[in-house]
Amino acid sequence: MIISMALHATREQIDQVRERIQELGYKVHSIQGEERVVIGAVGVGDVTRCLEQIEAMPGVESAVRISAPYKFVSREFRSVRTRIRVNGIEIGGGEFAVIAGPGSVESESQILETAEAVAKAGAKMLRGGAYKARTSPYDFQGMEEEGLKLLRKAKEATGLAILTEVMSDSDVDLVAEYADILQIGARNMQNFSLLKALGRTTRPILLKRGMSSTIRELLMSAEYIVAHGNPNVLLCERGIRTFETATRNTCDLAAVALLSELTHLPVMVDPSHATGRRSLVPPVAKAAVAIGADGLLIEVHPNPEKAYSDGAQSLSIPQFERLMQDLGPHIRLWEQTRLAEGSSAV
Amino acid sequence: MIISMALHATREQIDQVRERIQELGYKVHSIQGEERVVIGAVGVGDVTRCLEQIEAMPGVESAVRISAPYKFVSREFRSVRTRIRVNGIEIGGGEFAVIAGPGSVESESQILETAEAVAKAGAKMLRGGAYKARTSPYDFQGMEEEGLKLLRKAKEATGLAILTEVMSDSDVDLVAEYADILQIGARNMQNFSLLKALGRTTRPILLKRGMSSTIRELLMSAEYIVAHGNPNVLLCERGIRTFETATRNTCDLAAVALLSELTHLPVMVDPSHATGRRSLVPPVAKAAVAIGADGLLIEVHPNPEKAYSDGAQSLSIPQFERLMQDLGPHIRLWEQTRLAEGSSAV
Amino acid sequence: MIISMALHATREQIDQVRERIQELGYKVHSIQGEERVVIGAVGVGDVTRCLEQIEAMPGVESAVRISAPYKFVSREFRSVRTRIRVNGIEIGGGEFAVIAGPGSVESESQILETAEAVAKAGAKMLRGGAYKARTSPYDFQGMEEEGLKLLRKAKEATGLAILTEVMSDSDVDLVAEYADILQIGARNMQNFSLLKALGRTTRPILLKRGMSSTIRELLMSAEYIVAHGNPNVLLCERGIRTFETATRNTCDLAAVALLSELTHLPVMVDPSHATGRRSLVPPVAKAAVAIGADGLLIEVHPNPEKAYSDGAQSLSIPQFERLMQDLGPHIRLWEQTRLAEGSSAV
Amino acid sequence: MIISMALHATREQIDQVRERIQELGYKVHSIQGEERVVIGAVGVGDVTRCLEQIEAMPGVESAVRISAPYKFVSREFRSVRTRIRVNGIEIGGGEFAVIAGPGSVESESQILETAEAVAKAGAKMLRGGAYKARTSPYDFQGMEEEGLKLLRKAKEATGLAILTEVMSDSDVDLVAEYADILQIGARNMQNFSLLKALGRTTRPILLKRGMSSTIRELLMSAEYIVAHGNPNVLLCERGIRTFETATRNTCDLAAVALLSELTHLPVMVDPSHATGRRSLVPPVAKAAVAIGADGLLIEVHPNPEKAYSDGAQSLSIPQFERLMQDLGPHIRLWEQTRLAEGSSAV
Repeated sequence: MIISMALHATREQIDQVRERIQELGYKVHSIQGEERVVIGAVGVGDVTRCLEQIEAMPGVESAVRISAPYKFVSREFRSVRTRIRVNGIEIGGGEFAVIAGPGSVESESQILETAEAVAKAGAKMLRGGAYKARTSPYDFQGMEEEGLKLLRKAKEATGLAILTEVMSDSDVDLVAEYADILQIGARNMQNFSLLKALGRTTRPILLKRGMSSTIRELLMSAEYIVAHGNPNVLLCERGIRTFETATRNTCDLAAVALLSELTHLPVMVDPSHATGRRSLVPPVAKAAVAIGADGLLIEVHPNPEKAYSDGAQSLSIPQFERLMQDLGPHIRLWEQTRLAEGSSAV
Repeated sequence: MIISMALHATREQIDQVRERIQELGYKVHSIQGEERVVIGAVGVGDVTRCLEQIEAMPGVESAVRISAPYKFVSREFRSVRTRIRVNGIEIGGGEFAVIAGPGSVESESQILETAEAVAKAGAKMLRGGAYKARTSPYDFQGMEEEGLKLLRKAKEATGLAILTEVMSDSDVDLVAEYADILQIGARNMQNFSLLKALGRTTRPILLKRGMSSTIRELLMSAEYIVAHGNPNVLLCERGIRTFETATRNTCDLAAVALLSELTHLPVMVDPSHATGRRSLVPPVAKAAVAIGADGLLIEVHPNPEKAYSDGAQSLSIPQFERLMQDLGPHIRLWEQTRLAEGSSAV
Repeated sequence: MIISMALHATREQIDQVRERIQELGYKVHSIQGEERVVIGAVGVGDVTRCLEQIEAMPGVESAVRISAPYKFVSREFRSVRTRIRVNGIEIGGGEFAVIAGPGSVESESQILETAEAVAKAGAKMLRGGAYKARTSPYDFQGMEEEGLKLLRKAKEATGLAILTEVMSDSDVDLVAEYADILQIGARNMQNFSLLKALGRTTRPILLKRGMSSTIRELLMSAEYIVAHGNPNVLLCERGIRTFETATRNTCDLAAVALLSELTHLPVMVDPSHATGRRSLVPPVAKAAVAIGADGLLIEVHPNPEKAYSDGAQSLSIPQFERLMQDLGPHIRLWEQTRLAEGSSAV
Repeated sequence: MIISMALHATREQIDQVRERIQELGYKVHSIQGEERVVIGAVGVGDVTRCLEQIEAMPGVESAVRISAPYKFVSREFRSVRTRIRVNGIEIGGGEFAVIAGPGSVESESQILETAEAVAKAGAKMLRGGAYKARTSPYDFQGMEEEGLKLLRKAKEATGLAILTEVMSDSDVDLVAEYADILQIGARNMQNFSLLKALGRTTRPILLKRGMSSTIRELLMSAEYIVAHGNPNVLLCERGIRTFETATRNTCDLAAVALLSELTHLPVMVDPSHATGRRSLVPPVAKAAVAIGADGLLIEVHPNPEKAYSDGAQSLSIPQFERLMQDLGPHIRLWEQTRLAEGSSAV
């Protein structure tokens, strides 16, 4: 911790801060600057609480932590990338993973048709919402368990693994019976009751970044899941909320590159939610491959103009096929980079 | 709904949109502009789904709703302010309500000392967290049910009503046994499982605005609770996340005035979380009174520099007493305005 | 400066940073933390350049300044409020100042009618744009020098001082001939050529906060003007750009309170631009008085629905008269607070 | 224009709006919805003024434009990409353009060494600031005309064309003597006096997006330059300001793809300013190529840790050489896409 005292802090206030830091179990290093006193506190403990307490003392201007607030998810803790293995696929390794499917599971024929098409086009996994987080209570809320059953049917028919969202700690066990990966939506990234419950399942978790969450907060939410017992977490950039309204969200692709410096966890990109516009999904998907993401989530619907949700950002099946073709050479460059990285790591 | 066709939309695309709108049960009005065709769709139905579907059609530039997406919480539905009565207090009426207390319940002596002091200074209700939403899994997570029991003791000792947070749908019944008002934190404003569960309790709900939630989204989340059966909702502005980091959040006070145009629900302000700095709590509190908020949530701690959470933004007991004195003349102006409003409404 | 070395920084990198800091003329204090080394650099010099250079060195995680980057505008430099005297008015002292008028000067009759009405209602100064900053090249760009002449006529007729905007360093001298206070619009807050030119005039400057500028950046822009020779600067909060679109901007009223801790310069509020909605101007104006602003800028037009610009946020003359009446008791509370502050300062 | 009347608008208010629209020269189309009346206004005129005036009328909820507010820069106006030819290079065509150089021109040896190195590594143009926009008046403000002369020397030595910033309308002629392309910095994107002056030069303009400017506002600023006489405008995405502080700005790469739908002007990306971190420049550069940008601006310095500005985001010369090598295969994919696009356009 580095504590900056106020310009006009008194000798007595400085001494009280020094004493309090020692009481809290830290060693004190004072620096007398030209303008003010700065105090370094070295040690191990409940840093957040100490910071807040020190910041509350008279004469203190600010108190900032120097160490990262997360541990298990950091690159320092584990220098090699985590690989998440599920249903014969390995995300985070040498293979680029495309997960595709509709916003909502709507009917047996809809989900089966989509599953077969995306499998044929090269997707590794099927996505589809059975529990839907909708802004309005009057919007379609999902088929719930019925939807989960249809996803299982689609898995049986195509062999595709299943990614689907869970919205409450009370539903974790049920959804985990059907899904290969549990998705946590952006609005639940800081639903801490849910994060704790996810620590108790063995299913991998795809954790979407909250729409106004910092990269550090995303890592802290991943740390919750890992600290509560489940190390299999994938992160997902899906756009953040900014002043720009021409796109549904602002896709923070640089975050993908920064995350791969900070953490060993795989990082996915969801260009459908990130842009909200079908025409922008292919270019953003290519950029996500080029920047080194581990995979993509793409919304695909057999009939976007009749979709129960997210129609404007869903690709039709021919559009998805075209995208997979166009991504081909980009993915080959990606594979070469991963290969080179792997051999340099050895 | 107003649908703008793209500049180069074909005759055929326009006709398909017109047909689809009729299929969906709406009446069609086309306007041939200088540059493009605009189509009005009039009727009643699942507007969101229709919008998304129409927006997904070829040749469509954009589709926007004209009607408000919420109903029960709107001023159109109910023109007089809702008054929430609890424990002899009435929020939303002619009396300004101050709710005060510590960020976290920490011990019996801490909560009793605070309760007695804030009651004496004029607070109407005690706040205190037993379940804490913390960014880090390593931070203090609250005393949970033990904390609820201490809040009950404080109520018995002082007669103050209790406001405390609930974080999961599985905890609603338990917390409702102890609390007079259930608080939903900013991070859970769009935890839809929780919102639905709140619809099933009879306790009033204080719903905090999410840190990146629009005013419309706040109203939609309130609509969830009301539509699921509980009409007793209070809204709370607690600062939004912006680029500015000099304050913890940016307090959107104009939202309070706008909300009172749009909804009949009471609107509270939390200057402690909105600013994150103790010195800014009193001026923002005064501004909140002047702009017409129905009440304030203020963090108070007998010893902020030893608080388990939120020390830097908590007032000490003498600071709170001073604030209550300073607020006096502002509250008297507020009462005159409410009185004038009341008589002009008759 | 506090420099945090990376977790895996080598001994050699740490030594190079220490040497470089000394080369740059600072004294070095190292702190060996549990995880990493932190280096304090104490001294006086071109801090920004040093920070950037140190941050560019291998093994450095971050380098942050501890001292404030501004000097002349800070409360440390001058502890009493600056009072700006113009045309018999004194802003920043014991009198609350209301500046009112139309967005644009449109015609002699329009500006004279407005000037007389706002003077009668109690405004201290007339605002009106002769040079207009418009997003589109096809929008009304202002009457330019012709408009300045009409403002002078209005001043002669009513005795009101004049506030009007200058947009380019080439126009400063011309506008300064007509205006009592030169306004710098939000979009020009970091037009550094203009700021330097303003340092060379003796007219007071009203500097509006840029719509995405931090409080620190606002103070740095004021520092530009003062450092280039003109100490008469007023700051103005006019709303910042956030994700919320229900209001034109988000009025950051807490910034007013924070600014009065950080600087001795007067701080005004412009509720018209901050909200963009006429109905929100009165409540935000009241809140600005309560939070301790030194004055208000209010858009008033004799016929808002025929205004050349900003009609939706302009008050009509009767609305402005009503506002001035309603503000009365709030301004009296404000005066008592200033008086008390003044006597406690003695 | 589409005007939505308020829910409780009276018959009289609706009639007044209809009449006013006709007075303004538009044709009126009313739609009687279930809840409210919506009025379409069709015609040609000063749309912004009309919108603002109508919005100011009693009973009006909102008034929105349907047509795009820009014309010359739109894809509708010109369907093929504009190619900017300068010094034998053509930006916007079939060749990817890399512009590289230091943040500031500091000395003859510094700029010559950099120019030779970036030319050898494959850059098409040299960037370097002679007039610097700095947040603080105490930071290095650039070598001004002396710096321009050094840039000319570097051009003579290497044959590289020169890109450099102009900050004031008074400097346009001078800078245009030395520079092949004039750069407008993010802080001046809405310096309308400067934009008008740029319309009078024949030099191409590189217009950087303001850090809180929407895509539409960027296009409007380009429209200013074109409408005032200079059609040679390049746009540049350089990151926007958001709540995220882990990177200096948030690089809005999706904006590049959206811009190429909306405008025929070339779009560049500046990953150095967009991220502020040297390690993120290469991945963001690759993503910019993949998403279809027309070129890159890269900060390169022979000795970043002694740079007068922007050291932390500048690549060293070996790092730049490595980047150019790594970009190779990505640029070859880019060329194939452009080629395919070109032949499909024929």
